[in-house]
Amino acid sequence: MTKQQLVKQIFDKQTFLCVGLDPDLQKIPAHLLEDEDPIFAFNRAIIDATAPYCVAYKPNLAFYESTGIKGMLSFEKTVKYLQDNYPTHFLIADAKRGDIGNTSAMYAKTFFETYQVDALTIAPYMGEDSVKPFLAYQDKWAIVLALTSNKGSHDFQLTQDTTGMRLFEKVIATSSQWGTDENMMYVVGATQGKMFEDIRKVAPHHFLLVPGIGAQGGSLQEVCRYGMTKDCGLLVNSSRGILYASNDIHFAEAAKEAAKELQAQMKEELQAHC
Amino acid sequence: MTKQQLVKQIFDKQTFLCVGLDPDLQKIPAHLLEDEDPIFAFNRAIIDATAPYCVAYKPNLAFYESTGIKGMLSFEKTVKYLQDNYPTHFLIADAKRGDIGNTSAMYAKTFFETYQVDALTIAPYMGEDSVKPFLAYQDKWAIVLALTSNKGSHDFQLTQDTTGMRLFEKVIATSSQWGTDENMMYVVGATQGKMFEDIRKVAPHHFLLVPGIGAQGGSLQEVCRYGMTKDCGLLVNSSRGILYASNDIHFAEAAKEAAKELQAQMKEELQAHC
Repeated sequence: MTKQQLVKQIFDKQTFLCVGLDPDLQKIPAHLLEDEDPIFAFNRAIIDATAPYCVAYKPNLAFYESTGIKGMLSFEKTVKYLQDNYPTHFLIADAKRGDIGNTSAMYAKTFFETYQVDALTIAPYMGEDSVKPFLAYQDKWAIVLALTSNKGSHDFQLTQDTTGMRLFEKVIATSSQWGTDENMMYVVGATQGKMFEDIRKVAPHHFLLVPGIGAQGGSLQEVCRYGMTKDCGLLVNSSRGILYASNDIHFAEAAKEAAKELQAQMKEELQAHC
Repeated sequence: MTKQQLVKQIFDKQTFLCVGLDPDLQKIPAHLLEDEDPIFAFNRAIIDATAPYCVAYKPNLAFYESTGIKGMLSFEKTVKYLQDNYPTHFLIADAKRGDIGNTSAMYAKTFFETYQVDALTIAPYMGEDSVKPFLAYQDKWAIVLALTSNKGSHDFQLTQDTTGMRLFEKVIATSSQWGTDENMMYVVGATQGKMFEDIRKVAPHHFLLVPGIGAQGGSLQEVCRYGMTKDCGLLVNSSRGILYASNDIHFAEAAKEAAKELQAQMKEELQAHC
C-alpha cells in the first residue's frame, strides 16, 4: 500500500484506528473454545465487527507462535481472511524482527513474500544492514521501534549521547536516511505524551504507529495534539480495549462499540488538527 | 541446562563449538530437494555428522519462518530430533525476540514451554520488562544482544553516553542486574576482536555467544585471547562454514571435517587459556 492510499483511507473513513489482533486463549470468550480454530473464529468476528471503524489491523506474532504450528495456522488464516475480504485495510505484522543482513533478508521474504503483509515492525539495535532488506520491497513498510510504550523504554531509549541526542532520536535521525516516509514508519508509545513534540522535530513527515492507549494508559488527545500532521501521520493502535471489551457471547458487538467510540474521537481529532 | 552442566560438557568434549542451523533451500545439496522435508533431512545429516565436535546447536528462526508453516514444521522436527537424540547438547533458538512485558511473556512461553529449548536470543532495545519474562524459567537462558558481528553494529551499539559508556556496555551493565550469569549470556560478534577486553570488564563471568567466525571474518584465536574465562565462557558459533563446506552428496562428511577442525583449534585454546 502506498502512503497516498493510506492517507486517502484515513480521510475517507475519518479514522486512523489500528486494531491489534492479540488473541489470548486465556481471555477469549469460553464458547469459542469449542471451535476447531478458536483463535481464527475470534479474529474473524472481531474483524467483521470493527472493519468500518479502522484502517489497519496488527496481529502480534507472539500470540500466534505461542501455540506452535497450530497458532501459525491461525495467523495464516487471519492474514488470508483480511486479504480476501478487506483488501484496503493496511496489514501490519507486529513481529519486531531484526538480524544481520542475510538473515533480515529471510525475515523480509517471510513477511513480504510468503505472507504478503503491508508492513512489519523492526527492532533497530543491530543497525543499517538489519533494517535495509525490509526497504527493498515496493509499497511495503518497515516500522522501526523508536520510543516504545512500556516502562522499560526508559532503560536505553532515553540515553543521551555526548551531543545531547537521545537514543530514540538518533535511531530516527539515522534510520530515516536509509529509506523515506513512503516506506518507513516509527513506533512511538502513546504513553510518551508530550515527547511526540520531540519526535516530530526529527520525523516531521513519517507516519507513527502508536500503541499504548487504553490498557496501557496513553491519551489519544495528547498524542494528536503533539503528534498529528496535515496528513494525519498517525496510526493509533488499540488491542485489549477492543478485543476484550466483553468476554461473553456478545464480545463482537462490544468490540464494535469500543471501535466505534474510538472512531468518533478520532474524527474529532482529524477535524481539529487537519 | 545449568551453567555447571554446560561447562562440564565443554571440558569433557574439549570444544565450545555451537553449530548454527541456518538451512537455506538455495544452498543445500540439490539431491535433498527430492526429500519430503529437505530442510529436516539436511539438518539431521548435519547434526549426526557434527555432534561429537560441538556442545550446542543454534537454529535461526528466520530460515524456518521464511517458508511459512512448512518451515516451522521443519523447525519442530529439528528441535525434537535434537532433544530425542542429543539431549546433552545446549539448544539455542536464535530468534532475537523482545516486546512489552505481556508479549515477551508469550514469546517465553513459545520457546521455553512449547518448544522447550534451553535458550533464546533477545533484542534489548525495549528494556527491562521486555527481557525479564525470559528469566522466570528454571535452567533456561536469555541471550541478550550486546555487540553484534555485523557492520550495522556500529550505528547504535557504539554510541557513547554522557559518561563515556557505550550503548553495548550500558546494555550489559544494566541488564546483568536483572538476572545472573546462571541465566543470561550476551551475544558478542567475533568480528569485534580486541573489544572482548572491554566486554570482559562489564561481564567478567557471563558466557558469551559468539557468531562471526568463518564467513563473516572473525578470528577464533583473537576471541579466545581477549574473551576466554577460566570456565571457558564462550560458545563460538559457525553456520555457513560448516553447513556449506560442500554442496554435493558428501556434504555431511565435509561438515564433519569442518567441525572437527574447529574442535581441534578449540582444544588448543582451552589448553592455552584454562
